[in-house]
Amino acid sequence: MARADDLFIGVDLGGTNIEAAAVRNGEVLASKKKKTRPEKGVDTVIERIARTVRGVFKKMDATPEDFAGLCIGAPGAVDPATGIVHAAPNLDWTDVPLGEVLRERLGLPVFVDNDVNIGLLGEYVYGAGRGALHMVGIWVGTGIGGGLIVNGQLVSGWRGAAGEIGHMVVQPHGRRCGCGREGCVEAYASKTAMMAMIEEAMESGGKSVVPDIMAKKGKKSLTSSVIEDALEAHDEPMMEAVETAQFYLGLLTANLVNVLDPHVIVFGGGLVERLGEAFVEPVAATARTYYLQQQNAERIRIVPSALGDDAGPVGAAVVASRRL
Amino acid sequence: MARADDLFIGVDLGGTNIEAAAVRNGEVLASKKKKTRPEKGVDTVIERIARTVRGVFKKMDATPEDFAGLCIGAPGAVDPATGIVHAAPNLDWTDVPLGEVLRERLGLPVFVDNDVNIGLLGEYVYGAGRGALHMVGIWVGTGIGGGLIVNGQLVSGWRGAAGEIGHMVVQPHGRRCGCGREGCVEAYASKTAMMAMIEEAMESGGKSVVPDIMAKKGKKSLTSSVIEDALEAHDEPMMEAVETAQFYLGLLTANLVNVLDPHVIVFGGGLVERLGEAFVEPVAATARTYYLQQQNAERIRIVPSALGDDAGPVGAAVVASRRL
Repeated sequence: MARADDLFIGVDLGGTNIEAAAVRNGEVLASKKKKTRPEKGVDTVIERIARTVRGVFKKMDATPEDFAGLCIGAPGAVDPATGIVHAAPNLDWTDVPLGEVLRERLGLPVFVDNDVNIGLLGEYVYGAGRGALHMVGIWVGTGIGGGLIVNGQLVSGWRGAAGEIGHMVVQPHGRRCGCGREGCVEAYASKTAMMAMIEEAMESGGKSVVPDIMAKKGKKSLTSSVIEDALEAHDEPMMEAVETAQFYLGLLTANLVNVLDPHVIVFGGGLVERLGEAFVEPVAATARTYYLQQQNAERIRIVPSALGDDAGPVGAAVVASRRL
Repeated sequence: MARADDLFIGVDLGGTNIEAAAVRNGEVLASKKKKTRPEKGVDTVIERIARTVRGVFKKMDATPEDFAGLCIGAPGAVDPATGIVHAAPNLDWTDVPLGEVLRERLGLPVFVDNDVNIGLLGEYVYGAGRGALHMVGIWVGTGIGGGLIVNGQLVSGWRGAAGEIGHMVVQPHGRRCGCGREGCVEAYASKTAMMAMIEEAMESGGKSVVPDIMAKKGKKSLTSSVIEDALEAHDEPMMEAVETAQFYLGLLTANLVNVLDPHVIVFGGGLVERLGEAFVEPVAATARTYYLQQQNAERIRIVPSALGDDAGPVGAAVVASRRL
């Protein structure tokens, strides 16, 4: 087995950015970021990943031989055994042998896993979940992702489909979700849902500065920075959308506490990184009113990600060190 | 370690009945049932348990020495390490050293655990969950109980509070639940909730034969046999209450599938034993419309308990054989 104090490359492959980092003992020593540009096709993206990693080599003045291995987190359904990304809708990828190709390009052992699970593992081993045995991760983005750790182990489920917490239905016959069903948490709490709610408010005559902010920033969708600016401008529809999202995330948190009894619930994703405690505290307040007040309930920790952007690369290094 | 083909006593201690059985290899060889009579106090109940167990000895023409050990499932918060029942509201028990007292009375090793977990383990090892790695149990009674098996292990959670699936909130600001919150599954799907819904229907002028059936049977609450008779009489409020319960149990099932990805969801409790598939099939149909249609979703099994009343004693024997 590799040791945690070996040097690893951890990569976080997102729909927008590729982040690669040299990691030792849970610490990022050097990192490099590039745009993903999925619209340019699979080969270009893989080449961009390789260049991002080589950028880290260069920053560290190192060669592939200096690293024990590389692990990359991909957004979608991944087979860790083969390194194949079976389906990554954000990248428009189907059955891409990412592990094998990267191994050939970079000349070091490569492991592939799901990005949310990897980020969760980073938080679990080196971040907000350190020392806990049971933990839940809730990632707020264009969707609501999540992961579960029970008895110190990632829960994959029977089909590898566990952790679809964004599709917990908490409002029967409620808002339509991207999955086609109604009343999922994701239909109230994702950035996509917030944008839809703002548009509805404007259609019924509400005023919002969100479209202006988006235009000024050249954004086509509701990004975390747009949300932050709109909140700072005390934009009414934006504040209401965020409050709605927080309420449903609180309900989701309480339901997961009642079902799984985790010690730590960690929130991550760009929006949470940007707003931090200010976003998570109202979520926690709602959760506290909805979970059972059993022994030590007041000691359940509901917190923002401690590692932020580094959770991905740090978690990836954990996976690599465990697999080697 | 004891072997599964040793002879064990498995006991299920409920608020109404005590059931004790001699079990070998998951099979009940002889059993004995007595009323619990919790209103007569702790000592009387423990004496009644001991007499039920001695009744099994007698039926088997055996002595305590013929058994490797005894395990008893109690309804409430139990510390398996000490055998103390910390809180069992149905029995009005607080901090009862059940394991120690029974050991002295009966002269064989005694283990104590939570009744729902034990029943779930019975179904997992010898019943509906046989061969699965991930399973959820949903028990429909005066409340909605539950248990989870992930990676082949019972999930206890950080505080031993996992599995409170009846308090998953699926209807914000919905019906008031016994726990004081609003919109829990238990507030729609328990026998207590069904009774409340029937009373409400009658208050708004609906006709129901339920009170007559209860009077004729001398029942003070809505028992499973009353429900069965009312359904056979095509009682409108009863049918509506059961349909409501089934809808919310379906939603709960779907949410647990999306979160945990179990292979098997088993339904138990007196009502399910009585109505079987006829009760579970509409629940499964709702669940299928609410869980994500990912790979092999059609192979998820949503089934009634296979062991029925025997799940408790059989599961208790599993616990005893594992602990010895």
